[in-house]
Amino acid sequence: MSKTSLPSQSADFPAWYGEVVRQAGLAENSPVRGAMVIKPYGYAIWEAIQRELDDRIKATGHENFYLPLLVPASVLARESELVEGFAPEVAVVTQAGGKELEEPLAVRPTSEALIWSTYARWIQSYRDLPLLYNQWANAVRWELRPRLFLRTSEFLWQEGHTAHETEEEALAETLTILHDVYADTIESVLAIPVLRGRKSAGERFPGAVDTYTLEAMMRDGKALQAATSHYLGQGFPRTYGVRYTGRDGSERHPYATSWGATTRLVGGVVMTHGDDRGLRLPPRVAPQQVVIVPIFGEEDRPAVLEAAAAVADELRAAGVRVRLDDRPDHRPGFKFNEWELKGVPVRVELGARDLASGVATVARRDTGEKREVPLPRVAGAIDGLLMHVQTSLFDAASDERERRTLRDPSGYDEMIEYLREARGFVMAPWCGGSECEGRVKADSTATIRCVPLNDGSPPGRCAVCGQSAVSEAVWAQAY
Amino acid sequence: MSKTSLPSQSADFPAWYGEVVRQAGLAENSPVRGAMVIKPYGYAIWEAIQRELDDRIKATGHENFYLPLLVPASVLARESELVEGFAPEVAVVTQAGGKELEEPLAVRPTSEALIWSTYARWIQSYRDLPLLYNQWANAVRWELRPRLFLRTSEFLWQEGHTAHETEEEALAETLTILHDVYADTIESVLAIPVLRGRKSAGERFPGAVDTYTLEAMMRDGKALQAATSHYLGQGFPRTYGVRYTGRDGSERHPYATSWGATTRLVGGVVMTHGDDRGLRLPPRVAPQQVVIVPIFGEEDRPAVLEAAAAVADELRAAGVRVRLDDRPDHRPGFKFNEWELKGVPVRVELGARDLASGVATVARRDTGEKREVPLPRVAGAIDGLLMHVQTSLFDAASDERERRTLRDPSGYDEMIEYLREARGFVMAPWCGGSECEGRVKADSTATIRCVPLNDGSPPGRCAVCGQSAVSEAVWAQAY
Repeated sequence: MSKTSLPSQSADFPAWYGEVVRQAGLAENSPVRGAMVIKPYGYAIWEAIQRELDDRIKATGHENFYLPLLVPASVLARESELVEGFAPEVAVVTQAGGKELEEPLAVRPTSEALIWSTYARWIQSYRDLPLLYNQWANAVRWELRPRLFLRTSEFLWQEGHTAHETEEEALAETLTILHDVYADTIESVLAIPVLRGRKSAGERFPGAVDTYTLEAMMRDGKALQAATSHYLGQGFPRTYGVRYTGRDGSERHPYATSWGATTRLVGGVVMTHGDDRGLRLPPRVAPQQVVIVPIFGEEDRPAVLEAAAAVADELRAAGVRVRLDDRPDHRPGFKFNEWELKGVPVRVELGARDLASGVATVARRDTGEKREVPLPRVAGAIDGLLMHVQTSLFDAASDERERRTLRDPSGYDEMIEYLREARGFVMAPWCGGSECEGRVKADSTATIRCVPLNDGSPPGRCAVCGQSAVSEAVWAQAY
Repeated sequence: MSKTSLPSQSADFPAWYGEVVRQAGLAENSPVRGAMVIKPYGYAIWEAIQRELDDRIKATGHENFYLPLLVPASVLARESELVEGFAPEVAVVTQAGGKELEEPLAVRPTSEALIWSTYARWIQSYRDLPLLYNQWANAVRWELRPRLFLRTSEFLWQEGHTAHETEEEALAETLTILHDVYADTIESVLAIPVLRGRKSAGERFPGAVDTYTLEAMMRDGKALQAATSHYLGQGFPRTYGVRYTGRDGSERHPYATSWGATTRLVGGVVMTHGDDRGLRLPPRVAPQQVVIVPIFGEEDRPAVLEAAAAVADELRAAGVRVRLDDRPDHRPGFKFNEWELKGVPVRVELGARDLASGVATVARRDTGEKREVPLPRVAGAIDGLLMHVQTSLFDAASDERERRTLRDPSGYDEMIEYLREARGFVMAPWCGGSECEGRVKADSTATIRCVPLNDGSPPGRCAVCGQSAVSEAVWAQAY
């Protein structure tokens, strides 16, 4: 596990990603094609993300529930857009209890079908609305080109499914989730800056009227769709016969939303912050925020270990997640490399000479900066430092995205070259036509990631066809 | 949702159970045979159980991880005991990604097979041991006679899987989980008293050397197996080729354990504490610990609601989960019945007359006792009351179990009659022979639930055959 075994990001980003995920102990492949084993270190990052999302989901008035994994084919089949969208990816149970099943069961690719056939029983009156429910679950979508965390045949996620009396309420819900749950978690906890926008018609979720998205830039210039929130209109409620008696006594269909965030966010953390030495974890999701590496010879070992344990205790008492790496059979240099690879935000080095001078060396993983801190001030200094690292990682990622976003390219050729080489995002006026969207894709393989929200800039002329633009759009190669 | 719609426990316990689960909003059946929809109120109880188990699992040194849902048939097939044990219950995926699969995939009934084929890669040296891992997941076992929470085709659980250098360590792990994780959660949080014991050979987990169990008595006199912890010996490691280099340089197999607790615990809470008016939830797992029901006419409505909100705020500030039921279109009596059905431990009634006297009425769900408390002392009184209700429920269940346990029956006929009528547990000496176990089962349908741990009593003569007994055993009808 020496650092030289990691390919550099600039030489081969996909190889770097695969190796850092493997060597840092985040995840590995399993005997089932495309399904991963999430290892303890990777799962601890996911648990931190879960907790933060779950807190915000509950703070915005939602409750958790749980629906079955297996969906009868006939229930799924009622919604044709859903079936067409997911048919190539569905895994099907045809035998159970030692027999062929009369009706095959789909392993849920997403739960709208079962949810709305259930809501049909739960919604009778306007008094039953809104329903604001979420589930934490696994889902299966067969992947032809799997990548650990980013595209896996099975993934973990939360899927929210809500029902509302009015279109306004449903639209407000869609945006509350986008801003207050997803963007807030992803930016303030994962330190990943995101563009908030809506998808073009071709990139929408099957069955959605509008799909809102958060798009992040990875360090190879590609976009990662970090989370999506869908306004579903009345399509699913109609298909599944969900009707209620309104305030005026008339029969109505509710308005629907759904929204999800998945384990791919772990991949987003890796590809937003990682560098050639390994992960750089934002303190708020780091399983260990501080590692203490004692440096000792035979005779000063007890004194150094005692001082290191005292620092660890003080940090723990202050609520810091800390690991004292007192493994006797590894040298300090080996430990430094390993914890750098694992992205622990702050390292404390403490040797006999430091102890004699009453100091410890505190090193930041994100910048590599080191400084000596008097021992009684180490815990206090680290508290502030962790907040600073959290902000610095976000700022660095924002600067990087800014630097790699080409605004208003001088011409179509420049735009296509930029996109084809995946140098970053192109932000340019768009006429709104699917022909222009398709032409860019054909010429560069890049897609419209989103039409940014609250775009106040004057549209100008479409960067593709030169006709009047209706909005800005953001193009990029995408994961 | 009036209280008269609930059958009495004494008249028809299964009907009572089904109705209380449905009417209290815990769970309902789904379109998939035997798989349930866990509704928000039921899921909130499960979340509380999860948090408590997870804290203890981590406090005893374990980490969480996640393995795939789908297990290649060939991986599962390598362990013959596992295959034979679970074959009749397995659901099988035969199609995915629009094609027939070359190899069918089992939906995990339990994860030993995939875990141990994974551990084969992770364990090379004694330095890699112990592995102390757990996962929170769903599992599928096809059920012919499903019952909400108790036996469902899909259930939620945690499954721990550990690997150790020595048999002693593995046995100690099995018992740590039994006592410090499971029994502590189930007794101190769910207020369910449990017998700690080991299973007879016939009741062991497939592939286990020894299965330890916690057995609880439900209010119909039947036993519920609340959680199990298995010492697996070296069987799985051998089957899946897990070998490591020991401290002496020789090649060895590690020793294995596995242990699980499932959503059936929610059913256990219902059947241990519920009464003819509905659920009685222990405060530590109650989604709402206190409900405040304001009682008002038109003119005193604002004053009463304001006072009620102040009490709610004070309770919330003290960390109590409280709901202010200010629904305008339901009468207080309706609300009382509904919250009794849902088992909220404490109800606060507050009317205009109370307000004038500066008091509120505080009612316990478990005993029905009511008393007036001066408004400034309500929050303080409730804090103590919740702890008292928690203890009282545990004590009441312990007394009930004691009362319904027949020790040393006067003869075989008395024992069989007691068991056949499911009057409770029979605790009696046993020779250890499977013939006697089988004879009791044939005569009464009851099984040996466990051989209690730390049984200091002199064995005496087997209650079935009259030969020398080797231990006490606990017999009962079981869920």
